[in-house]
Amino acid sequence: MRQSVRGQVDPFIVMDVMDAAARAEAAGRHIIHMEVGQPGTPAPAGARRALAGALDQPLGYTVALGLPALRQGIADLYRRWYGVDLDPARVIVTPGSSGAFLLAFSALFDAGDRVAIGVPGYPSYRQILRAMSLEPVGIQTRAEDRYQPRAQDLPGDCQGLILASPGNPSGTVLRKDELAALAGAAQARGMALISDEIYHGLSYGDRCHSALEVTDEVFVINSFSKYFSMTGWRIGWMIVPDSHIRTVERLAQNMFICPPHASQLAALAALDCTDEADANLAVYAENRRLMLEGLPKAGFDRIAPPEGAFYIYADVSHLTDDSLAFAAEILERAGVAVTPGLDFDPDRGGRTLRFSYARATEDIAEGLRRLTEFMSAR
Amino acid sequence: MRQSVRGQVDPFIVMDVMDAAARAEAAGRHIIHMEVGQPGTPAPAGARRALAGALDQPLGYTVALGLPALRQGIADLYRRWYGVDLDPARVIVTPGSSGAFLLAFSALFDAGDRVAIGVPGYPSYRQILRAMSLEPVGIQTRAEDRYQPRAQDLPGDCQGLILASPGNPSGTVLRKDELAALAGAAQARGMALISDEIYHGLSYGDRCHSALEVTDEVFVINSFSKYFSMTGWRIGWMIVPDSHIRTVERLAQNMFICPPHASQLAALAALDCTDEADANLAVYAENRRLMLEGLPKAGFDRIAPPEGAFYIYADVSHLTDDSLAFAAEILERAGVAVTPGLDFDPDRGGRTLRFSYARATEDIAEGLRRLTEFMSAR
Repeated sequence: MRQSVRGQVDPFIVMDVMDAAARAEAAGRHIIHMEVGQPGTPAPAGARRALAGALDQPLGYTVALGLPALRQGIADLYRRWYGVDLDPARVIVTPGSSGAFLLAFSALFDAGDRVAIGVPGYPSYRQILRAMSLEPVGIQTRAEDRYQPRAQDLPGDCQGLILASPGNPSGTVLRKDELAALAGAAQARGMALISDEIYHGLSYGDRCHSALEVTDEVFVINSFSKYFSMTGWRIGWMIVPDSHIRTVERLAQNMFICPPHASQLAALAALDCTDEADANLAVYAENRRLMLEGLPKAGFDRIAPPEGAFYIYADVSHLTDDSLAFAAEILERAGVAVTPGLDFDPDRGGRTLRFSYARATEDIAEGLRRLTEFMSAR
Repeated sequence: MRQSVRGQVDPFIVMDVMDAAARAEAAGRHIIHMEVGQPGTPAPAGARRALAGALDQPLGYTVALGLPALRQGIADLYRRWYGVDLDPARVIVTPGSSGAFLLAFSALFDAGDRVAIGVPGYPSYRQILRAMSLEPVGIQTRAEDRYQPRAQDLPGDCQGLILASPGNPSGTVLRKDELAALAGAAQARGMALISDEIYHGLSYGDRCHSALEVTDEVFVINSFSKYFSMTGWRIGWMIVPDSHIRTVERLAQNMFICPPHASQLAALAALDCTDEADANLAVYAENRRLMLEGLPKAGFDRIAPPEGAFYIYADVSHLTDDSLAFAAEILERAGVAVTPGLDFDPDRGGRTLRFSYARATEDIAEGLRRLTEFMSAR
């Protein structure tokens, strides 16, 4: 049977590490997981309680753009977080941020269009673009720019630009003036701007700025996965310009019918559970403190300033040019699973690693102990 | 901000009817809903109980293709329903059948490819194809063929064929020999075959045959939405040939990460709730009996044999050539919401209506009483 060309997307290299970690655990070894990109905590208790209380009613289709109360609640979040006054009609509830990207790319780009993305970056940008017959155009970012693209780096002849702040794998954050410069440059070049803000709420210095603070001409994508600890619930959202609401609504009706109803009810209640979310944040903050102290001591001292999310991206070019083999060695000898940079940067990721600190603090402390021992014996 | 060409998909015409029905209800009128395409019943009690019992654990990402136990359970269903021995590795759990279509189209077709679909048919086939830069090619089916395409009707120069049995809006079923002939003709022409079997389990004569009974060279799409009464849970599945498992896995990892975890747990338990699903089926069967008796008496006597699903497709060309206005008149004067055929057949649907009998039997009886009165007064 035929296969498409666009369906042949790259495999995740981290899967090899995760498989190896799973095999090691199956063989009885204890592994510290610094490769995972998700919280180890459940959805907020209030969210789970709300769903438990709703399970007797039929959870049929909702309207395509999501429950009106949830759209209003998300709009209210923009006032609290950013001081932005947002019409809830512009809020699109989506099946995870993944669903938001599918909608955004369909609404904005035609087959063959080129979309610029910072490298290193979230690998699925590249793969979803390819699967939709779009061409990802990498912007090679620099460590001295905190692995974020600069306005003067935008390539010509592109129809779109994806920004991510805090970035994955870097955890670095775009300042408000940088966001404004990038948004302005994109608009001047006729590039549609998509701002991935999925790690907002998880920051350790100043609050993160939304692209909505500098322009309304942007698709802002976010999710309940990270700050609200709801990865498996597949519930996110997107803010679109007024001009695109109807287009996105029709696409959503056909491509998804609606986001999962149960997840929408849980998410609506989660909006009131910021105490629990902030308690999780306090754990990440302590983990981050341990990592910033322990990683350099262990020998991983070339790291991007991890201002948000729960990742640290380390340049290990003084240690290896084969990060996949190096990650395998760390797993084998130290019992710590880490992510080689190749998924995030196919060209330069052989010389980088991503460390996640999303899990319990005792795991982080133990992982750092093992990494220190491994490096000193190396 | 730019908009894509492919994002400009058609609106659903039925939305106008649903909006009008909602306005009538808001104004205090009682409306019988024969326009909806979903059960009024909740997910099976066992499914809801299983989820309630799992809410204390973190429901993080699952593997992209779904929980292994769920994939095994679905494979077992194929032995029970069809006598087909199915490797669970070929079972892909998806975010609804909608997600399955997105995966199938990405894995099989490149931009510009042409995909044949029977007309009348589910409108989202057409719209999703367009949103993915594919060209839907309608096969005009005939009432005397039960609104199903025949092998000799397949158009040339197409890369794919979508079959739907039971069909929506027709409710008609393809016989096993018809399936085999269509599958053979598609293969001979190099067309990838996609078989939409979302209404399986809801049939009123012989059981429905799966395309998997006649070929392994097919993408079979199904869902927990209809027979298991779980529309809003957005959980479905797809069976793919061995040759396509890896491709679909990589696409699913990137496009969806995973199907909703909570919905997977509920679906796994639902597989054991066939008593409740069959009780719902008995209600539809009684509704169907009432419809087949009442609709012709009311004057809607040109109907496709409704062998499955919960729809009756009626030729009303002796009554109108403007089904949208006719549906509005029925809503206004009879207080019954029905679906004009235009969403399913843009060319000929001005002369057809779809009646759904998915709701409670007392609503169906009342709806038929109102339709009879309306038609006799007309």
